[in-house]
Amino acid sequence: MSPQANPPRVLVVNGPNLDLLGRREPEVYGTDTLDVLVDRCRRVAGELGLEVDARQSNHEGVLIDAVHEAMTGHGGVIINPGGYTHTSVALRDALAALPVPVVEIHLSNVHAREAFRSHSYVSPVATAVIAGAGVTGYDLALRFLAERIVRRT
Amino acid sequence: MSPQANPPRVLVVNGPNLDLLGRREPEVYGTDTLDVLVDRCRRVAGELGLEVDARQSNHEGVLIDAVHEAMTGHGGVIINPGGYTHTSVALRDALAALPVPVVEIHLSNVHAREAFRSHSYVSPVATAVIAGAGVTGYDLALRFLAERIVRRT
Amino acid sequence: MSPQANPPRVLVVNGPNLDLLGRREPEVYGTDTLDVLVDRCRRVAGELGLEVDARQSNHEGVLIDAVHEAMTGHGGVIINPGGYTHTSVALRDALAALPVPVVEIHLSNVHAREAFRSHSYVSPVATAVIAGAGVTGYDLALRFLAERIVRRT
Amino acid sequence: MSPQANPPRVLVVNGPNLDLLGRREPEVYGTDTLDVLVDRCRRVAGELGLEVDARQSNHEGVLIDAVHEAMTGHGGVIINPGGYTHTSVALRDALAALPVPVVEIHLSNVHAREAFRSHSYVSPVATAVIAGAGVTGYDLALRFLAERIVRRT
Amino acid sequence: MSPQANPPRVLVVNGPNLDLLGRREPEVYGTDTLDVLVDRCRRVAGELGLEVDARQSNHEGVLIDAVHEAMTGHGGVIINPGGYTHTSVALRDALAALPVPVVEIHLSNVHAREAFRSHSYVSPVATAVIAGAGVTGYDLALRFLAERIVRRT
Amino acid sequence: MSPQANPPRVLVVNGPNLDLLGRREPEVYGTDTLDVLVDRCRRVAGELGLEVDARQSNHEGVLIDAVHEAMTGHGGVIINPGGYTHTSVALRDALAALPVPVVEIHLSNVHAREAFRSHSYVSPVATAVIAGAGVTGYDLALRFLAERIVRRT
Amino acid sequence: MSPQANPPRVLVVNGPNLDLLGRREPEVYGTDTLDVLVDRCRRVAGELGLEVDARQSNHEGVLIDAVHEAMTGHGGVIINPGGYTHTSVALRDALAALPVPVVEIHLSNVHAREAFRSHSYVSPVATAVIAGAGVTGYDLALRFLAERIVRRT
Amino acid sequence: MSPQANPPRVLVVNGPNLDLLGRREPEVYGTDTLDVLVDRCRRVAGELGLEVDARQSNHEGVLIDAVHEAMTGHGGVIINPGGYTHTSVALRDALAALPVPVVEIHLSNVHAREAFRSHSYVSPVATAVIAGAGVTGYDLALRFLAERIVRRT
Amino acid sequence: MSPQANPPRVLVVNGPNLDLLGRREPEVYGTDTLDVLVDRCRRVAGELGLEVDARQSNHEGVLIDAVHEAMTGHGGVIINPGGYTHTSVALRDALAALPVPVVEIHLSNVHAREAFRSHSYVSPVATAVIAGAGVTGYDLALRFLAERIVRRT
Amino acid sequence: MSPQANPPRVLVVNGPNLDLLGRREPEVYGTDTLDVLVDRCRRVAGELGLEVDARQSNHEGVLIDAVHEAMTGHGGVIINPGGYTHTSVALRDALAALPVPVVEIHLSNVHAREAFRSHSYVSPVATAVIAGAGVTGYDLALRFLAERIVRRT
Amino acid sequence: MSPQANPPRVLVVNGPNLDLLGRREPEVYGTDTLDVLVDRCRRVAGELGLEVDARQSNHEGVLIDAVHEAMTGHGGVIINPGGYTHTSVALRDALAALPVPVVEIHLSNVHAREAFRSHSYVSPVATAVIAGAGVTGYDLALRFLAERIVRRT
Amino acid sequence: MSPQANPPRVLVVNGPNLDLLGRREPEVYGTDTLDVLVDRCRRVAGELGLEVDARQSNHEGVLIDAVHEAMTGHGGVIINPGGYTHTSVALRDALAALPVPVVEIHLSNVHAREAFRSHSYVSPVATAVIAGAGVTGYDLALRFLAERIVRRT
Repeated sequence: MSPQANPPRVLVVNGPNLDLLGRREPEVYGTDTLDVLVDRCRRVAGELGLEVDARQSNHEGVLIDAVHEAMTGHGGVIINPGGYTHTSVALRDALAALPVPVVEIHLSNVHAREAFRSHSYVSPVATAVIAGAGVTGYDLALRFLAERIVRRT
Repeated sequence: MSPQANPPRVLVVNGPNLDLLGRREPEVYGTDTLDVLVDRCRRVAGELGLEVDARQSNHEGVLIDAVHEAMTGHGGVIINPGGYTHTSVALRDALAALPVPVVEIHLSNVHAREAFRSHSYVSPVATAVIAGAGVTGYDLALRFLAERIVRRT
Repeated sequence: MSPQANPPRVLVVNGPNLDLLGRREPEVYGTDTLDVLVDRCRRVAGELGLEVDARQSNHEGVLIDAVHEAMTGHGGVIINPGGYTHTSVALRDALAALPVPVVEIHLSNVHAREAFRSHSYVSPVATAVIAGAGVTGYDLALRFLAERIVRRT
Repeated sequence: MSPQANPPRVLVVNGPNLDLLGRREPEVYGTDTLDVLVDRCRRVAGELGLEVDARQSNHEGVLIDAVHEAMTGHGGVIINPGGYTHTSVALRDALAALPVPVVEIHLSNVHAREAFRSHSYVSPVATAVIAGAGVTGYDLALRFLAERIVRRT
Repeated sequence: MSPQANPPRVLVVNGPNLDLLGRREPEVYGTDTLDVLVDRCRRVAGELGLEVDARQSNHEGVLIDAVHEAMTGHGGVIINPGGYTHTSVALRDALAALPVPVVEIHLSNVHAREAFRSHSYVSPVATAVIAGAGVTGYDLALRFLAERIVRRT
Repeated sequence: MSPQANPPRVLVVNGPNLDLLGRREPEVYGTDTLDVLVDRCRRVAGELGLEVDARQSNHEGVLIDAVHEAMTGHGGVIINPGGYTHTSVALRDALAALPVPVVEIHLSNVHAREAFRSHSYVSPVATAVIAGAGVTGYDLALRFLAERIVRRT
Repeated sequence: MSPQANPPRVLVVNGPNLDLLGRREPEVYGTDTLDVLVDRCRRVAGELGLEVDARQSNHEGVLIDAVHEAMTGHGGVIINPGGYTHTSVALRDALAALPVPVVEIHLSNVHAREAFRSHSYVSPVATAVIAGAGVTGYDLALRFLAERIVRRT
Repeated sequence: MSPQANPPRVLVVNGPNLDLLGRREPEVYGTDTLDVLVDRCRRVAGELGLEVDARQSNHEGVLIDAVHEAMTGHGGVIINPGGYTHTSVALRDALAALPVPVVEIHLSNVHAREAFRSHSYVSPVATAVIAGAGVTGYDLALRFLAERIVRRT
Repeated sequence: MSPQANPPRVLVVNGPNLDLLGRREPEVYGTDTLDVLVDRCRRVAGELGLEVDARQSNHEGVLIDAVHEAMTGHGGVIINPGGYTHTSVALRDALAALPVPVVEIHLSNVHAREAFRSHSYVSPVATAVIAGAGVTGYDLALRFLAERIVRRT
Repeated sequence: MSPQANPPRVLVVNGPNLDLLGRREPEVYGTDTLDVLVDRCRRVAGELGLEVDARQSNHEGVLIDAVHEAMTGHGGVIINPGGYTHTSVALRDALAALPVPVVEIHLSNVHAREAFRSHSYVSPVATAVIAGAGVTGYDLALRFLAERIVRRT
Repeated sequence: MSPQANPPRVLVVNGPNLDLLGRREPEVYGTDTLDVLVDRCRRVAGELGLEVDARQSNHEGVLIDAVHEAMTGHGGVIINPGGYTHTSVALRDALAALPVPVVEIHLSNVHAREAFRSHSYVSPVATAVIAGAGVTGYDLALRFLAERIVRRT
Repeated sequence: MSPQANPPRVLVVNGPNLDLLGRREPEVYGTDTLDVLVDRCRRVAGELGLEVDARQSNHEGVLIDAVHEAMTGHGGVIINPGGYTHTSVALRDALAALPVPVVEIHLSNVHAREAFRSHSYVSPVATAVIAGAGVTGYDLALRFLAERIVRRT
């Protein structure tokens, strides 16, 4: 798929501690930094005819503010809510308000870790959920959104 | 009750996603925006001899900071904690420290929604709780505080 | 609002032990008796263009019978279900069958008491819930109904 | 990636009731039949340099037998365990014994349905989990395995 | 231990509502303000050959940002997570990523208060936990770190 | 079976809110009133050589009093305990004391409704339980009792 | 203790199904009827210088009304709440309002029966609890009250 | 009702261990064998203008396959899921997919046995549930279906 | 009842911390010491034609050894298991083995204290349970045993 | 014990994934294959005067069918239910119907693994349970049955 | 195996109430006394080339002391922890510290009794668990240890 | 602080299995023996102007007896309750009776181990709790008590 004049934009939101990517438990999360991850997203998105807006914050409120932007400006959202996955009703409510598809993503397989990581406040309001696929998961999420956005247009 | 020279001030705090008011699920939350709601609060407060200080934030920390202001400057607090209702011990602790009456308010009837919305960390430290009365709930909360503040003076 | 020829009637139902009002734990429930409370309701209702039908019983069945009256004869219901709040599915079912708005009310803040008082069978089928506002709560409930009933007419 | 002489084989296992695909709740599961789904998998796999072995059964034991085949003959497994997701320790144990990556997949977003569908015996022993992406999910799973298998070779 | 040229630095992080120290429930938390507490920490640290970096915030995100600083710059962390103790997986994850010892501290004995205060997301990733020792607890935490840091060098 | 001189009598007890039958949620409970239901019971019972004693009350105590009558005067009991199904140990104890078979009946399929409706205090002391068969359920219950009573005689 | 001119009165309240005494499961509850039990209470009370007012009802509301009588007229209450023990918050609230000692009594050892019989809403507001002592339990309860009432006078 | 040329067919499915009928715990399940039960079903069905297709298997998968037949060929299903009642989400999903009424049936009163037998995965997707009526229960189920099928035609 | 030549013996066992009686929380447990309590038991027992063997220990094993004595030598046992009430299966098993009636006794009303004190491992194997009657409870227990032992002889 | 003309037969049933024995996690389950295990059972059985019938299947239904054989043909059953231990009520019911002793066996110590492996549906209907003794466990089970069968003959 | 000069010693520890063996519920525990049981253990051990050290106590602490002996002096431990099975973390910790295999044993099938007997603090730290095999269980445990100890030497 | 003529005495109580210190899991508990630990306590106490009374026992009852000594003879208590932490209400009650400050101490971080170690019966009645600080924890506890005792004098 070739680049468009005005390609649909996808919001990629990374939550708390993902700024440590590449430095925290590399055997779990890999050695790529967040910058590398975002660059990869941009490249894959480009190939799919999408454009990526990337955000990262450790602040729940900043993440909610970011999600609100997608009320009007984006065709889809990819969110890795980090630790807020399991504790944030406020983030869930923000995502539930969106008129576009949302993909929840986790680098590691959260179901193979502590029991409390199996519960997500976000999943019931997400369109799709991908866990354990590492950075590849972001590619998969972009492909899913590409298909959804294209199909709708 | 006629306007006073220095009317008692009430802090009205709106939590996460209430900035979307009028845009999010209007069949549930109505079509009035947050500005309209705050204006209405000011008008009703004025009739009751009160003055309103309004705050809204999606940030838990900002809400706590706001609540701390009421340690000295206000005669009462009305708070709609949004999603933090169900998850924030820190906000509860901030409210518990206040020397003035606190009314917890919810636009929708939280008890008729998902099970997790039935538990509030805030309720046990609030003076009164009002849910499901829509924007009218803010009027009721102001009336309650008016009576309380007047009775105490 | 001035008195009408045939003002809408509101059913005010008080459940078990509310006949002890003024005699039971006055530091919690105040020193006003049930008669005083009902008189106050009538006066406030009158100011709002409503008329009050008051019932009190310690019998679950009598309360259900009373609620059934409102299937046809009333524009709204205010109910303080007392201890039946936490145990009566039958009362809930009766309230759920009503075609008019229902306000559940509690004098004290039930969320600040024993854990079992936080669960209400009534709340999910009520329109609005008010707790902890003392006798003022009845005024607020009447105002809420006044607005609802008027808005519908 | 161009077709190989002996491309790595991926086992695609569909569990109970997936033979009804296209006939059961099409608004949830789409109108494509299982045959269409499998054909699509074969085509996508071919593009990725993989070959697909497809199985479907309503029998827990047949599914376990099928998984055992992958002890030696396959480079990866994609499994949609259907209703056995939530109840089969035996299937989990079979998957846990495999020396190759396993992707658990669900057509619908299981987290947005009945509470009991949120618990999976399979997830903790899977490599990755994809839910809610519809038939596209199988494409994503194949891509993930292609990358994993290639990276390892 | 005498002061060093470049003494090891300890990060002392105080969470939500600790800015109210001395003003909130003095019978529980004492009458010393946060400034007094931090000064005391600095003095004790100095005697132990340590230097203190102090942070306080009501914002979960700011606390996480602060903890990230200790990825490289500090020999140990003392954290009083306040209300976030019981609700923040994100803060836990930040602390778990640290390569240095972490002491979780609470002024009051959290186990003698509401049931929900007995559960800490932070404790399982802390090195040591001290509760109920009042401001003295910070002295004890500093002594523990002094011993740990010295022993390691 | 032809009518007898003194046919065995069956007590048919309908609990709270069943007096609303035909008026409450007709799409769930049908449009027949309680009188129609009772008439139907009498007719079917007559065909089966039984006689029906019918009771309805919204009062738990009245229902218990009614059940006590069957200690001596009836060959079997059919009871639709309505909301008391889930809350009344006292009614259970009354039924458990009976020397005759008891059929618990529900018009709707209680297992397909709110979670709390799945627990019945009555079922463990009933002989048989029928749910979801609508008014036909009363016919089935009468047939079951007819067979039991005949078999025993 | 010799009979007095105006001996203190004790209210003895028996709840649901105790009218079946002597007829229901005699191997558990004995063969004495309620009349025999009440006569025995009167006799023992007489010996202790007390007078007995006896009530029995299967109606929760009637029991609450009866308890309210003791707000002013009695020196103590003995109550066997039967099945309402485990389900009635309303009865609990009525008992909690009394200014005199309350003894909760059960003929059988409720702790050796179904699990749900181990929880009593009444026990936390009773002065003393006696279970499993059969009809003798009423004697013991009277003795306890005799001592309490005398000690207080 | 007289036999028809092409009477509607009802699928009667008996699950695990029902092949032992008449041999297993005859005091609970009676002395009739499965053959006798099926013959009785055929006879009763014939009287009601229905035809019976009978299946029994100890294999969950075989039961699911059987249920799938009813997607097109039957007017209703009677299923005694035996032990799979409490454990099979896969069977539930198969039944939920059917366009015809389903009656869940149990020979014994499952609510009077071990606690785990009180939960049924099948009940929420069944039309009606009959338990504890012994083999008579199958008659009742057939009568219910006869009425449903006739009413719909 | 006059003293006998060989009066039946009752074993009175007091568990952990009851040696502190009169010194520990006198507002709860009274000011009488254990010696005073035992003397009172002996005197009351004498009046009832019984003899008392008294034991006290803080050691679970010593209490079990003591209970074993009653396998042959006593007509009944009164036990206040103190803190072991809630934790000792071993003590329960020892009591369950006894061929004589056992009365479990608590000075305070355990149901009005911490939640964990509401569960007793001993109650289900006791004959009767008395709580909250203070030292009078021992008198009541002796009277109950006197009646039981006499009735059996 | 010397070989008999017609030695009692023992049914040895191995459940799902035990066909992988020797290949799956050898550090847990050892390196012996299922064939080696069965041969060992035959040899030990021979020494004890017993004969072994061995079955293995990954199919729950096949296992139930096998257990049904033992209704008449065997003197005892040894079953390693594998993953069905924790999920199969149907298998439990089949075992409960047997008139001969049943030994449940697990190679590994299930209590030292995931929490869900601590619950067995089979144990309450087994005669004896052996876990964690590896293949030796089968010897022990055979010895237990030998003693039981001999003792009964 | 023939007797050795210095055979390996096995510690056989019997917990609370096992001194009552032969006297307590003989239909459950058999009629053999503890002395008979220990003699049998010695004889079987002798045949297996082992020597038995036997201990019994009703005191948790004495049992822990005994287990500590096995830190150095024994090749294996057989323990029947009686009621402490379900309540003693201290005993578990003592067993977990041992460098030799531990067999937990129960005379009866604890899984077929009260629910609380299904949980064992000891099982997760035992090597093997045997329940329900009666006194034969001790033989089996000795055989298991004989094989383990021999295999290690 | 220099040594006093009659320094305040502190009771240091070590519970079950702490006699194994230095021998049990040295990577967790270190290589110092209990004697070394006690000597260290005495030395640190001396520096702080305190005197140490040390006790260790594996017997719950002996620990309770020891705690009772501190009713009169000590200025504070340091207790490491070992496994009794999680199971002993009796020990809790003994500690709750003390008029002096109590420090609960654990060598390891109990919150990072098995879930059942997170619950302590002792913590709610302790003054302060220290966990995970190894033997240093005893120093910290002594310092805390020194400050408390001095401050009170």
